[in-house]
Amino acid sequence: MIGIADEEFLRGNVPMTKQEIRILTLAKAKIYPMDTIYDIGAGTGALSIEAARLAPDGEVFAIERNPQAAQLIAQNIEKFSVENIMVLELEAPEGIEHLPPADVVLIGGSGGSLTRILAAVDKKIEPCGRIVVNCITVQTLMECISYMREHEDTYSYEAIQVQVSHLEQVGAYDMARAMNPIHIVTCTKK
Amino acid sequence: MIGIADEEFLRGNVPMTKQEIRILTLAKAKIYPMDTIYDIGAGTGALSIEAARLAPDGEVFAIERNPQAAQLIAQNIEKFSVENIMVLELEAPEGIEHLPPADVVLIGGSGGSLTRILAAVDKKIEPCGRIVVNCITVQTLMECISYMREHEDTYSYEAIQVQVSHLEQVGAYDMARAMNPIHIVTCTKK
Amino acid sequence: MIGIADEEFLRGNVPMTKQEIRILTLAKAKIYPMDTIYDIGAGTGALSIEAARLAPDGEVFAIERNPQAAQLIAQNIEKFSVENIMVLELEAPEGIEHLPPADVVLIGGSGGSLTRILAAVDKKIEPCGRIVVNCITVQTLMECISYMREHEDTYSYEAIQVQVSHLEQVGAYDMARAMNPIHIVTCTKK
Amino acid sequence: MIGIADEEFLRGNVPMTKQEIRILTLAKAKIYPMDTIYDIGAGTGALSIEAARLAPDGEVFAIERNPQAAQLIAQNIEKFSVENIMVLELEAPEGIEHLPPADVVLIGGSGGSLTRILAAVDKKIEPCGRIVVNCITVQTLMECISYMREHEDTYSYEAIQVQVSHLEQVGAYDMARAMNPIHIVTCTKK
Repeated sequence: MIGIADEEFLRGNVPMTKQEIRILTLAKAKIYPMDTIYDIGAGTGALSIEAARLAPDGEVFAIERNPQAAQLIAQNIEKFSVENIMVLELEAPEGIEHLPPADVVLIGGSGGSLTRILAAVDKKIEPCGRIVVNCITVQTLMECISYMREHEDTYSYEAIQVQVSHLEQVGAYDMARAMNPIHIVTCTKK
Repeated sequence: MIGIADEEFLRGNVPMTKQEIRILTLAKAKIYPMDTIYDIGAGTGALSIEAARLAPDGEVFAIERNPQAAQLIAQNIEKFSVENIMVLELEAPEGIEHLPPADVVLIGGSGGSLTRILAAVDKKIEPCGRIVVNCITVQTLMECISYMREHEDTYSYEAIQVQVSHLEQVGAYDMARAMNPIHIVTCTKK
Repeated sequence: MIGIADEEFLRGNVPMTKQEIRILTLAKAKIYPMDTIYDIGAGTGALSIEAARLAPDGEVFAIERNPQAAQLIAQNIEKFSVENIMVLELEAPEGIEHLPPADVVLIGGSGGSLTRILAAVDKKIEPCGRIVVNCITVQTLMECISYMREHEDTYSYEAIQVQVSHLEQVGAYDMARAMNPIHIVTCTKK
Repeated sequence: MIGIADEEFLRGNVPMTKQEIRILTLAKAKIYPMDTIYDIGAGTGALSIEAARLAPDGEVFAIERNPQAAQLIAQNIEKFSVENIMVLELEAPEGIEHLPPADVVLIGGSGGSLTRILAAVDKKIEPCGRIVVNCITVQTLMECISYMREHEDTYSYEAIQVQVSHLEQVGAYDMARAMNPIHIVTCTKK
């Protein structure tokens, strides 16, 4: 089954990528069962857990600098009984150099270091590997696109913007409640 | 000048149509200087005040059932020194029958009585008159469209959905904050 | 792997639900490996094929009234070597009564018969079964929501609107190209 | 009256900012009757004409590099009998230095020279003057925001993204047709 509902994850006060964005991110990542996956800025681990299920014979490295969030990831791993996730409490790109080569890299949070993270990932990503970046700011989107355009010999990319509204049921009415739009940039190593 | 900023209006706890939606509503209404205008579900009166400025030789009837909101309208009228608005503390369609014929009818809130309001307005609206309905629920949109389709001999309509996000400046970043999408239905009496 | 790219499907002139909407539809449907699935208004079969892969031990019934489209489905089934799809060239609700009970029903096209289709599906859907309806018109959305509200004792529903734009690379620029917004209504049998 | 319908303008093959975006642009520009306005990348002149009507005692300088478009502007000026627009067939920032000081600058097209245009405009814009930039690419948006952040001592800015869909009437149905999203950045000289 794909697509775990948001409320099934333990969340605390840690921001979580919403279900609709997670599933689109995972689809763009084209995850195969044996893939090695990095989830950078893993937050609650929601995306890591869904990725780990899609790669039961692979491994997910969940990198998260916030200790409270790292703990939540551990708790969610336990709740969902997933065994192929390793949590690394580090601030990326720190630690990336020691990881095994990646088939897929998911970047949900980059803490202002996206270019440095992409440079570190570039040394690890396999040919035909996918880097999927969720951008919630104009600056991150531009930084990602600029990097890919500067490295167009080694990467192609496609980008989408997604805006989801939920119809909230209020008495006899259904009222659209907008979620913030987000850009998803999918970069493929040539 | 067209387009008053939201924060210039007194608001209290009364919901207010946001600037972007107000200006689109006013543009769709094609207000002429001598027009007679009803603003039904006037809320804070923000739309009434902008309409009144576009019709300096006409008159705006602001109909609002909530006494607290009706008081706010009066305060905003004073603040903006607008003289051609009459506030009617009534629940539409009540009171419409006694008004002079309308060139433009703006419907921001219908309290679940849209069909009855449209029927009352139909007896008052001039040929080539415009009814502009802001719909924040699926049901109101459907009710409005159904009415217009059932009366296609006497009305034509066009409808848009608008979704605006504001880029919030957070430190070095600009982050999109979505406002709820809204439908604006513009109905023209043949 | 979840998420097949649009261009991998044979399409002809048959309209196809785009990748982003397909994957969200599949996630909302919570498909389990043994599920029996109806895909009503199957079009090119793109959704059927992705559903069939998520239910390798189940079966998908692809119902499509357009002979040209039904043929495309057969070709896509062959292209993707999927074995658990049965194509039914019928106009739903025709034929539904003879199918085995359903865990999941995907409705992409209803040809103006949504209420009748939902009534036919209601006799087949298992407890906790999911009906996921893609609505591209206001009328279909309203019809779906109205049905679910009239049957609130037996169904709960949630609905989202999704609007995706693709960033098209034009020289040195990335320019957003909007896809039409769509509503996805997920109905769960109690 | 504010808000001229798109189809009332002569257009040829020249791209035109759509009505909804024009009216939002004009509202953000806070045009006063005596304002001096530049319209840079004036295209068909649609925005110039609406601006000129809002500033009957002011003047609009419509700058457009495309000769065919410049001709269209002249034709639209004649059609709408507007007298306070001067068309300059130039490629901005060329020509800006010779213009009188501006209260409002509308930038619809910048031909890849936005930073240079903003620098030229900066020498002309009055205190409290407004620069409103329509951005249809990520790069233009970023260039505009970056300029304003680098000049935060002299400018404040706010930015919105707008996405409009039109409900197209197809038989008994209303189907949303999306227009491309656009960013509108409003910069105010301190």
